[in-house]
Amino acid sequence: MTELPEGWEARNQPPTLFRRFEFERYSGTRNFLDALAALAEETGLHPQNINFSSTYVNITLDASQEGGLSEAEFGLATRINLLYEQTEN
Amino acid sequence: MTELPEGWEARNQPPTLFRRFEFERYSGTRNFLDALAALAEETGLHPQNINFSSTYVNITLDASQEGGLSEAEFGLATRINLLYEQTEN
Repeated sequence: MTELPEGWEARNQPPTLFRRFEFERYSGTRNFLDALAALAEETGLHPQNINFSSTYVNITLDASQEGGLSEAEFGLATRINLLYEQTEN
Repeated sequence: MTELPEGWEARNQPPTLFRRFEFERYSGTRNFLDALAALAEETGLHPQNINFSSTYVNITLDASQEGGLSEAEFGLATRINLLYEQTEN
């Protein structure tokens, strides 16, 4: 490979966990987002990316440790699954 | 590591090339963005992410091949550097 072009930086990106959550109507989406916000406040853990529209929420969790995905992300994903099961749709 | 929580997908992300381009004023930023658009139209190559404000443009190029960063990204980065040098600030 040739030399890095001037001024550019090579960056590695961590692996991620991704899930799409779907809802019948906006009220369900809203309830789920509220529950996610409460979870973040309680735990201090925030998904790296939340992308939503009226009837879905896509969530991406980045690996927080060098070695890749760990219990930290798996535990948060499991808690988010519980919120989804408990959400009034 | 425990089992993947239900419904979640593990995703690997490609390495990237990143550079921040700064400008004295918005007109320079605008000229550079126009030149980037023309380059994309000419070559069919689009940076994966362009994030800008009035006096800077952050550009991220994702590796397009399995093996990581390649001549494709290095060549595009070099052409973008040339556009930056040619931009009226």
